[in-house]
Amino acid sequence: MPEAAQLIQDALFERFGEHIAVDPALNGLDELARLAARGVCRRFLARDVSPELMHLLCACALSAPSKSDLQQGDILIVRENDRRERIADLLPSMPWVREAPVFLVFLANGRRVPQVAAMRGKPFPNDHLDLFFNATVDAAILLATFLRAAEAVGLGCCPISVIRDHAHAVSELLALPQKVIPVAGMCVGWPADKGRLTPRLSLATTVHEEYFDEGDLAGEIEAYDRRRAALCPYQDQRDPARFGRAAFYGWSEDKARQYAVPQRSDFGAFVRAQGFHLD
Amino acid sequence: MPEAAQLIQDALFERFGEHIAVDPALNGLDELARLAARGVCRRFLARDVSPELMHLLCACALSAPSKSDLQQGDILIVRENDRRERIADLLPSMPWVREAPVFLVFLANGRRVPQVAAMRGKPFPNDHLDLFFNATVDAAILLATFLRAAEAVGLGCCPISVIRDHAHAVSELLALPQKVIPVAGMCVGWPADKGRLTPRLSLATTVHEEYFDEGDLAGEIEAYDRRRAALCPYQDQRDPARFGRAAFYGWSEDKARQYAVPQRSDFGAFVRAQGFHLD
Repeated sequence: MPEAAQLIQDALFERFGEHIAVDPALNGLDELARLAARGVCRRFLARDVSPELMHLLCACALSAPSKSDLQQGDILIVRENDRRERIADLLPSMPWVREAPVFLVFLANGRRVPQVAAMRGKPFPNDHLDLFFNATVDAAILLATFLRAAEAVGLGCCPISVIRDHAHAVSELLALPQKVIPVAGMCVGWPADKGRLTPRLSLATTVHEEYFDEGDLAGEIEAYDRRRAALCPYQDQRDPARFGRAAFYGWSEDKARQYAVPQRSDFGAFVRAQGFHLD
Repeated sequence: MPEAAQLIQDALFERFGEHIAVDPALNGLDELARLAARGVCRRFLARDVSPELMHLLCACALSAPSKSDLQQGDILIVRENDRRERIADLLPSMPWVREAPVFLVFLANGRRVPQVAAMRGKPFPNDHLDLFFNATVDAAILLATFLRAAEAVGLGCCPISVIRDHAHAVSELLALPQKVIPVAGMCVGWPADKGRLTPRLSLATTVHEEYFDEGDLAGEIEAYDRRRAALCPYQDQRDPARFGRAAFYGWSEDKARQYAVPQRSDFGAFVRAQGFHLD
């Protein structure tokens, strides 16, 4: 079996706890191997990523599909020290934001299509949830496609969705106008170590055949908690003062504790203040 | 210069109207070339895509990053003729939905995290816009990552966001429960022709340095209209009875006309009826 096929099988076994057959005659195995074995990168070399390379990768990312060809996702590149520092100051638990040479922000741009309508002298009776949704999906597609391009050339990346916790401050810093919001950030740099592969819920949980079927969700999550803890146990338990110390602390306990606290309760108000209507 | 580097430069010139340097010593050029030259596929061979291959590609897609590791995106695979026919019947202007052997639906699953909270006996004070937003972004990331995996092995794909125009019917057909919505569909099959590359807005329009800068938006869009029309002119003008016949009919005129008509005005009501709160 070629090396790439073996690497894919091994990585997917670690990720999903399941032996998944890989036909060694498939095209594109190198690319599938990068995808299957990928992990988040949070340690970067003190080496710049050239503006030329960033430009190339943005072009590749913007070659992704876009809802109705409307092209409502934008990429904002931050590399000036002062601006990166100010973003990093918002996220003190994430030192990698300070260390990565480039910080990207993927933007949902719900502004351009109404602008185009105005330029062409047409009405725009679509200022409702659709505008927000389409632009958000386009931005997320850009994020995922940029990630593939960056990892193809050997860069390491760390998506930073938590900028949504500071959406107003980030928007001010980046001079985002009405109807433009930050969907997520991303640290980009040359990796100082191999990113860690994160085990995932079983494919029986997240892949449905013909119709939605929850199956034995509790059993699948229990099994995932155990499989995951064996590979990468949590170092700390969240908020033991409130929740006590669990004898076994798995993914479901961690996520339940994380979301037992209000998170981004003001995100809707932020989005509306940026001029989106969510009707 | 290696073949892949040349292919990337040529494709990106066609896409963005700009010469973009490609360092021929970069890793991953084959992958960047597939990305840069990609196009939507709407004609498929009468050849199945095996369930084993679909399983492998879903596993690769689900190796993508996920907001806070919450894993709120699901993939639903439709291959039964009857169910595919019923989806195709909703989209009569898109015969490729009937012809593709596999139809995927990428789902925003805002259901599982509250279920996990209930399983672990925790409150869930986060049933607001954040839940909807995170699940939507996760589903879009899955869509984009699945696309990369599928195109790597040589499959052709056509994202079908227009299922959102029939969100209620599609949800009934796929038995989607509360707090699960379809973000987009996708036809998958072996391509019968080379997908067509779509020219895109200039990178000066969609890539921002340090802060959001609209620049000369009207000039950029005018130039894009002209560049695009030279490469792939529109065959028809939308609704000439209402808008007349334009002497020059470009992207901005087409999109302005498309969105001069209410689109998916009921999408917000659908999302709320599925149990999401958008506060």
